[in-house]
Amino acid sequence: MIWCSGWELASAVSNAGGLGLIGSGSMYPEVLRAHIQKCKAATSKSFGVNVPLLYPDIDKHLEIIVEEGVKIVFTSAGNPAKYTSWLKERGITVVHVIANSKFAKKCEDAGVDAIVAEGFEAGGHNGRDETTTLCLIPMVASKIKIPLIAAGGIANGSSMLAALHLGADAVQMGTRFVASNESSAHLAFKEKVIATNEGDTILTLKELTPVRLIKNPFYELIQEAYNKGADKEELLELLGRGRAKKGMFEGNLIDGELEIGQIAGIIHDILPVQNIMENLIQEFNQAKQEMITFEF
Amino acid sequence: MIWCSGWELASAVSNAGGLGLIGSGSMYPEVLRAHIQKCKAATSKSFGVNVPLLYPDIDKHLEIIVEEGVKIVFTSAGNPAKYTSWLKERGITVVHVIANSKFAKKCEDAGVDAIVAEGFEAGGHNGRDETTTLCLIPMVASKIKIPLIAAGGIANGSSMLAALHLGADAVQMGTRFVASNESSAHLAFKEKVIATNEGDTILTLKELTPVRLIKNPFYELIQEAYNKGADKEELLELLGRGRAKKGMFEGNLIDGELEIGQIAGIIHDILPVQNIMENLIQEFNQAKQEMITFEF
Repeated sequence: MIWCSGWELASAVSNAGGLGLIGSGSMYPEVLRAHIQKCKAATSKSFGVNVPLLYPDIDKHLEIIVEEGVKIVFTSAGNPAKYTSWLKERGITVVHVIANSKFAKKCEDAGVDAIVAEGFEAGGHNGRDETTTLCLIPMVASKIKIPLIAAGGIANGSSMLAALHLGADAVQMGTRFVASNESSAHLAFKEKVIATNEGDTILTLKELTPVRLIKNPFYELIQEAYNKGADKEELLELLGRGRAKKGMFEGNLIDGELEIGQIAGIIHDILPVQNIMENLIQEFNQAKQEMITFEF
Repeated sequence: MIWCSGWELASAVSNAGGLGLIGSGSMYPEVLRAHIQKCKAATSKSFGVNVPLLYPDIDKHLEIIVEEGVKIVFTSAGNPAKYTSWLKERGITVVHVIANSKFAKKCEDAGVDAIVAEGFEAGGHNGRDETTTLCLIPMVASKIKIPLIAAGGIANGSSMLAALHLGADAVQMGTRFVASNESSAHLAFKEKVIATNEGDTILTLKELTPVRLIKNPFYELIQEAYNKGADKEELLELLGRGRAKKGMFEGNLIDGELEIGQIAGIIHDILPVQNIMENLIQEFNQAKQEMITFEF
């Protein structure tokens, strides 16, 4: 949710009954502080901050989170063992994002409070095993005792219900909230997301950090580089710096990196968060009701 | 289900309340006839035959199916427009396997009676879009009116229930039945399947026909070929002929191609089909019951 989830989206989700998260991966430390302060002003409900542990300013980020009294931190992209106890000693609930059950178990052993298990269909950075949400959730559920949050491919009430059946205790949705009024993504990117169809995203750059993105002209450059046998250094050079910002925040759909999940294919409207959440619960209850009357 | 689903598995599934399918892809025409005749002798219930439409002896296969009075044909790997009306004129129900909703719509327009939509996590040959079952099923469900059967990642009652929530009317299971007593797979392969863990399969040979297989020494040869920049012809030569038979039917786990789905990671026992089917229904009902009492 880099470049998409600032204080406006996070507070709207929390106000609508979810747990909003500020995505700090794109923020300088003082920008993060400003977002936390605005989020506190905009909601009296709990919200959290997502912190990629590989971020260079990670220590400053975590200090600001503590100073500002944030009570929930979602960590990702790194080893939770190093930071979990530090955060928990400061009264913070820690949730770590993983893509395989071996790492889920390591997180549990490291003392994290809950796990987000994210499948192959999810947008943005992704695991190397390519395990899909449908397969990953029962696998992780069988290995851990702490609460399990399913992510990847979930954008409505029936997929939320499906995820709970598979063994999840909750769901995390990204793509659906990118296409919300309150998301900080550029309008051109939001419009691209709702125009995205089945087959329009791909998991690529596996030699670097695997990432799911829309097959736009920038992706075509990646393809050309692969066809010429580009090595890791050449791919890194092509990726350069700021591609995600350019695409998702500045709305450059040609040169930018457009990270989004496969499930964008069923999302056809940009909605206020309040509507997204109401639809979600209504669809969930309806799907549940339909199944109650189902008989073999 | 090439090399795994002969008359013994098909009749056992039908006898246990499912719709058993004979996988004809590995069979010479007269071998298929013998399997159909044995299947008719072993069950009084309906069963079907799966026919890859790219098979060289396809016309002979279809004639035998008609002559032997088989009433249900699942077609795959080819254009259903060419054969659907011919089969339907002969009183046969036609179901076609697809991996994207554009092709599902084409199948519906061609007059097929139902669709199998198979996700990225499925074993064996697979689509190019890499859409996972969780995303694919709602996408296809929104595009067609005929019955929809979900495949890929489904091996127990809770994933069956999840698939129905996503918009499927039924499920097709492959991997779970490979590890059954009645499957014609070699015992060494069945034992390999139940030992397979999360992350042990991969979708590869995308330049040829994408296939999901276990990362065994044969797969390492594929990787080496890729690392050397092998082209399509070199990959075809490496694949050669009979790799799937060698692996799955003859039990050569080193040189053979071992096709299986990601969901093998949650299958830990070789069971009689009757037990698999009883477990499926019991898990389904239990999962349904648990959700009835769930409240926000």
